[in-house]
Amino acid sequence: MLLAFGLAAVLGTVLLMLPVATDHGEATNFVSALFTATSAVSITGLAVVDTGTHWSMFGTLVILGLIQAGGLGVMTLASLLGLLVSRRFGLQMQLSAQRETKSVALGDVRSVVLGVLKLSLMFETVISLMLTLRLLLGYDYSFTAALQSGIFHGISSFNNAGFSLYDDSMSRFVADPWISLTVSFSVIAGGLGFPVWFELGRRLRRGGRRRRWTIHTKITVLTTGVLVLAGFVAITASEWNNEATFGALGVPTKFLAGFFAAVMPRSGGLNSVDIGEMNSVSLLVQDVLMFIGGGSGGTAGGIKVTTFALLAFVIATELRGEPSVHVMGRKLPAAVQRQALTIALLSVALVVLTTTTMLAMTNFGLDAVLFESISAAATVGLSTGITPHLPPAAHVLMSALMFIGRLGPITLGAALALRDRPRRYERPEERPIVG
Amino acid sequence: MLLAFGLAAVLGTVLLMLPVATDHGEATNFVSALFTATSAVSITGLAVVDTGTHWSMFGTLVILGLIQAGGLGVMTLASLLGLLVSRRFGLQMQLSAQRETKSVALGDVRSVVLGVLKLSLMFETVISLMLTLRLLLGYDYSFTAALQSGIFHGISSFNNAGFSLYDDSMSRFVADPWISLTVSFSVIAGGLGFPVWFELGRRLRRGGRRRRWTIHTKITVLTTGVLVLAGFVAITASEWNNEATFGALGVPTKFLAGFFAAVMPRSGGLNSVDIGEMNSVSLLVQDVLMFIGGGSGGTAGGIKVTTFALLAFVIATELRGEPSVHVMGRKLPAAVQRQALTIALLSVALVVLTTTTMLAMTNFGLDAVLFESISAAATVGLSTGITPHLPPAAHVLMSALMFIGRLGPITLGAALALRDRPRRYERPEERPIVG
Ligand SMILES: [K+]
Ligand SMILES: [K+]
Repeated sequence: MLLAFGLAAVLGTVLLMLPVATDHGEATNFVSALFTATSAVSITGLAVVDTGTHWSMFGTLVILGLIQAGGLGVMTLASLLGLLVSRRFGLQMQLSAQRETKSVALGDVRSVVLGVLKLSLMFETVISLMLTLRLLLGYDYSFTAALQSGIFHGISSFNNAGFSLYDDSMSRFVADPWISLTVSFSVIAGGLGFPVWFELGRRLRRGGRRRRWTIHTKITVLTTGVLVLAGFVAITASEWNNEATFGALGVPTKFLAGFFAAVMPRSGGLNSVDIGEMNSVSLLVQDVLMFIGGGSGGTAGGIKVTTFALLAFVIATELRGEPSVHVMGRKLPAAVQRQALTIALLSVALVVLTTTTMLAMTNFGLDAVLFESISAAATVGLSTGITPHLPPAAHVLMSALMFIGRLGPITLGAALALRDRPRRYERPEERPIVG
Repeated sequence: MLLAFGLAAVLGTVLLMLPVATDHGEATNFVSALFTATSAVSITGLAVVDTGTHWSMFGTLVILGLIQAGGLGVMTLASLLGLLVSRRFGLQMQLSAQRETKSVALGDVRSVVLGVLKLSLMFETVISLMLTLRLLLGYDYSFTAALQSGIFHGISSFNNAGFSLYDDSMSRFVADPWISLTVSFSVIAGGLGFPVWFELGRRLRRGGRRRRWTIHTKITVLTTGVLVLAGFVAITASEWNNEATFGALGVPTKFLAGFFAAVMPRSGGLNSVDIGEMNSVSLLVQDVLMFIGGGSGGTAGGIKVTTFALLAFVIATELRGEPSVHVMGRKLPAAVQRQALTIALLSVALVVLTTTTMLAMTNFGLDAVLFESISAAATVGLSTGITPHLPPAAHVLMSALMFIGRLGPITLGAALALRDRPRRYERPEERPIVG
């Protein structure tokens, strides 16, 4: 799968370097093409050139194709690995026979691939239609223009891809609840992940009211709600009087923009006000939200809401002084705790290292560089505006970061969970002082 | 103990508010006195007024007394709790009989208190003498002035207190290896912690060559070495050509200043170049070093090098796919892993929360505010220079932060380790997807 993503990025780079890919017919340089292709296939959304004006229809279609391939690939890969690890999800899909051999039956692979395809197609169609309709009815778009924009932003938002055809991202729609809420809902839907939708689908079709929801779904939905709410309150409050962002907006629009800004860090990557004009508090709040990201088995990035929530449960258990961690009535294996810890702390280390490197490459402050580096590592795509102004070496570094950020947590999480190499003998315990 | 520290802070505040405590004979306002007293008793070293010129001899003695009380108190408290938790340290001191009841024998308390007193007195005397001698021989100090400065900085450095009588901290001695290295050694000595020195002392007296060192000592010494080396390389390289810091210095002095700057974040708090003029890379490197801090059972702050190293061991184990964590030939109990995780992540949460709050209170950027907030939380005392310019509300917040930062990890670590409340029944396992 790493290979498949790598090949897609290489192919995309080559195609985007062709003169026919640009609007003005001149070839794009290697680093910019590499950056754009990686950003698209990793469904991040950071850009070094303006997507709407730089690329031709051909170039735009290449980007859209990379986004769609990346989104489907990530959802399928993560769902299959998740299935392999958790040995079941939803209400019915179980690896009962394969439990011992740790493999996924061909039938399960087919269900997942088809399920992901159906889910994506369904959401993308509905969202694209809603956007197209609104652009036709509420603005002076021609049918073709409305359809183009509707489809592009429908696919981009559901895949949490962060790309926009507009040079101001979604800022022109800041006061339009139809578009803002549709795009926000699309981002949340893609970010919840396939396992959650799969479980919901089964329940709706078969009626499973008496059976309990899986912990995965409960944690994902609850944590998503809590994070969006917390982000909404923090960002709305801190930008309320900022004349360059929310200050000039009417009160209902402030709330709408606050909701949009709270949803996009996980990992939608679109913005309806200028991120570069936001104050340090909002930037730091978004840093945290971006780092956590969205749900497993979806199009969102970050360490994932489950990883974050599990660590919170471990801490709560430790503070209550209980010997084993219980989450919603189920025991959490110690190995899972170590995996969550590993993913979270390695991600911290990755962000600190790249932030340090990028600080050394430029003269921008920590606010902006940390934001950009978390945005790349968590494949979010939000930007304070410095990315186009970074040196080529930083663009290459960020391309690597987007790639690692996209596939790292998924494959690492699965690799850790699937490996079991017991030690031959146990050694005596010893307890160093902690704290 | 919380009460004792709280009472010392209150008493210190009252004494420092007296007109007789200032050089110009006017009373200091409540917030500044509170901040200074808290900073001294928590051996942090952040200051809102210039220590050398604002305070009278009486005021200086109050600060010195608070530092000494704070340092002895912290070392004793942390060592006793560590002894209680680890049930032994050094080669001989063991709680064999008390193992069941989890109490420390009176004899052990006496040994720890006396040991800490002897250790502090010995180091402080030697360091103070070396500094006094150098000031007498190498500079034009009178005997009294040299002795005053020698004693103050001897006590301040060994207790990792970060206070200096000079308005430029140690900058005037940047090219003086005698003073720079003595102060650095003093900070490292205090920061290694009592358990390490206790074990070394026993070995020297009784000769324990055939017995193995405890893991606590090995981890503490090794991690300290690695962190100082890494900080030295990173800071020296990134400041090499900075005209406002290392740029103007000769090559040997650059290395000396780099070593000094790498030692001080753990948690010495003195500086020999202007921190406010350092670039973002050096600030971030120091942020990380400050957050980690020094050894347990010593005068340093932070989450402690053992906590950091244990988490690194857990991650390494997880990446190698081994089911249980082994550190230097010993098994690490799962509970200790959870404790390390809890301390580290709660500290992250504390720093993020206070940084967000302080960003909202001021117009300074993330570079400076994050640095100041980690410096307070890890009781380091280094400053980019913004602390005196923060509003009184921020000073109160930072006072609370220094207090929590000083006692939080120690008491939390011990409280977590000493509590054991087994669940009555075990529930079935379930494995959510991570990553
Ligand atoms: K994105
Ligand atoms: K200090």
